[in-house]
Amino acid sequence: MGRNVTARAHRLREMADLRGGIDLGGTKIQTAVLDPRGKVLGEARIQTPISGGPEDVAAAMAEALREAAGEAGTEPAALSGVGVGSPGGVDESTGTVTGARNLPGWNGTFELGNALEEALGTKVRVGNDVQVATEAEFHLGAGQEFGSILGVFWGTGVGGGLILDGKPWLGRGAAGEIGHMVVQRDGAKCPCGRRGCMEAYAGRAAMEAEARRQHKEGAKTDLFKLMRKHDRDRLTSGIWERALDANDHLAEDLVHRAIEALGTGVASAVNLLDVEAVILGGGLGVRFGERYMEPLMREMNKHLFRDDRPPAVRVASLGDLGGAIGASLLFAR
Amino acid sequence: MGRNVTARAHRLREMADLRGGIDLGGTKIQTAVLDPRGKVLGEARIQTPISGGPEDVAAAMAEALREAAGEAGTEPAALSGVGVGSPGGVDESTGTVTGARNLPGWNGTFELGNALEEALGTKVRVGNDVQVATEAEFHLGAGQEFGSILGVFWGTGVGGGLILDGKPWLGRGAAGEIGHMVVQRDGAKCPCGRRGCMEAYAGRAAMEAEARRQHKEGAKTDLFKLMRKHDRDRLTSGIWERALDANDHLAEDLVHRAIEALGTGVASAVNLLDVEAVILGGGLGVRFGERYMEPLMREMNKHLFRDDRPPAVRVASLGDLGGAIGASLLFAR
Repeated sequence: MGRNVTARAHRLREMADLRGGIDLGGTKIQTAVLDPRGKVLGEARIQTPISGGPEDVAAAMAEALREAAGEAGTEPAALSGVGVGSPGGVDESTGTVTGARNLPGWNGTFELGNALEEALGTKVRVGNDVQVATEAEFHLGAGQEFGSILGVFWGTGVGGGLILDGKPWLGRGAAGEIGHMVVQRDGAKCPCGRRGCMEAYAGRAAMEAEARRQHKEGAKTDLFKLMRKHDRDRLTSGIWERALDANDHLAEDLVHRAIEALGTGVASAVNLLDVEAVILGGGLGVRFGERYMEPLMREMNKHLFRDDRPPAVRVASLGDLGGAIGASLLFAR
Repeated sequence: MGRNVTARAHRLREMADLRGGIDLGGTKIQTAVLDPRGKVLGEARIQTPISGGPEDVAAAMAEALREAAGEAGTEPAALSGVGVGSPGGVDESTGTVTGARNLPGWNGTFELGNALEEALGTKVRVGNDVQVATEAEFHLGAGQEFGSILGVFWGTGVGGGLILDGKPWLGRGAAGEIGHMVVQRDGAKCPCGRRGCMEAYAGRAAMEAEARRQHKEGAKTDLFKLMRKHDRDRLTSGIWERALDANDHLAEDLVHRAIEALGTGVASAVNLLDVEAVILGGGLGVRFGERYMEPLMREMNKHLFRDDRPPAVRVASLGDLGGAIGASLLFAR
């Protein structure tokens, strides 16, 4: 009997140590419930609401977390905490998110942490989506063997995260904007409104805009044919891959241009910080990381001040769950 | 009598806590001896040897330190330690310096720390010149009110130093190369051999090379006339200033071009690190910092991702002694 009581107490303690993570993206919300060792016990994924406002997004996030908790055999209120990785301007100390451009009606500031604490009945911490994904790779993924890493998330935009000497570096709260490091003064227009940012060449959104522009001007490409054939409304990383597999010249040109910008911007960052490793994640990063590793390293090495010992470059290994796992780690910092 | 003995013991302890600092530059060696509060008790400055090898440079450094110690009423062996700020590739753990391009015969690796310990009879630590100057500004100069700073030393080249959350960030030993962050892919040739680095536009050496090129091609300028008149063999910051005061168009163009590159590169660094403040030092930085603060901020703000709250920008306040003071702080880290 003693043993049974102990086992049950142990199990209760274990359950109380479960944590939730929510990765809030522009197209999907991914949630996960993890044990203290980072093992995923339950997960769920839903579409991000495309209308309404922050309250509706928060409600959808809570629902998706409830689903993951159910799969893990628990409920949100029993979790020791839920972390959130969010786009936009995140204030970790207050849990507010400001100006999340890709989310509906989210131009102002919303108290996301408070709203979720109320909905879930447990503590909530909010961090930057790319930063927490970097922390996940550092603790549980491709960055485990290093002490200092730069996470580069190559997707719709290009985001960055930093771990220096084992600790997240957030600056005044907005560090890691590697996508807006300049690679070409007075260069291409960036979705952020400025000119010459790395993202203006490498971000999926910017690549698509440039493909449309050149296509309109008569450049031959099957990119948009493939998009319609596969019933997409934008050039996803999968569409780009199909076009590359078919030796589509415009696709090749634009991916090469993206790789040049990535290599240049990453080299600039490494010249400044001299980190041990660069972890390449994001939709395009994961899909093309291995395929374009050699040209990426070549472009990077052109600009590395210490090209005799470039940093290690690794593709992120946690996949689509990385963001949610990293968010849950906000309770392990 | 008791009081006298105590006073003398106290004085001995005080003297034992004195530290030395040596700033090793391409044209001069500046030394200083400081009390534990950072007050300079003695200093000396000599020309850097222009021939011979690292041994000769080390001997000159030891001599200059001896002179500063003498002025402070002590001798090198009585100091608790001597710090050195050196150009080239510095290994702090071994005190070696590799490939100091501006110093005579210093292409290989030289055990500078060991050589100086032998010559001076006290402990010696060697750090990167720009990093220790940044640390001096952080602890005793223009950066005192901030927790995280980027030091930008605008001189013959453009060097950088980092203090993050109160601590020096060295990366794998070569962090801070802000001068080799790229501002223009496939841009101007940099003294480092690469293309498009910030230093290729903003470094004094690169500015002079461009001035010579344009002058040869027929551009009007009094820069070289002023140089000869003031008996210089290069365009010093003072010569640039005289030309600007006389509204020399080429000088104005090239300084503006340098400011554009500086603003762009610093903005990139701030987007990545989100530091609280930027400290602008170096020969050109100190001479032109206030004069060009407004255009510099304007160029920087063009590229700042968070342009709603730019970092503070301050001109370095420790002057020519900053490097030597910072070097002595290697014993206070």
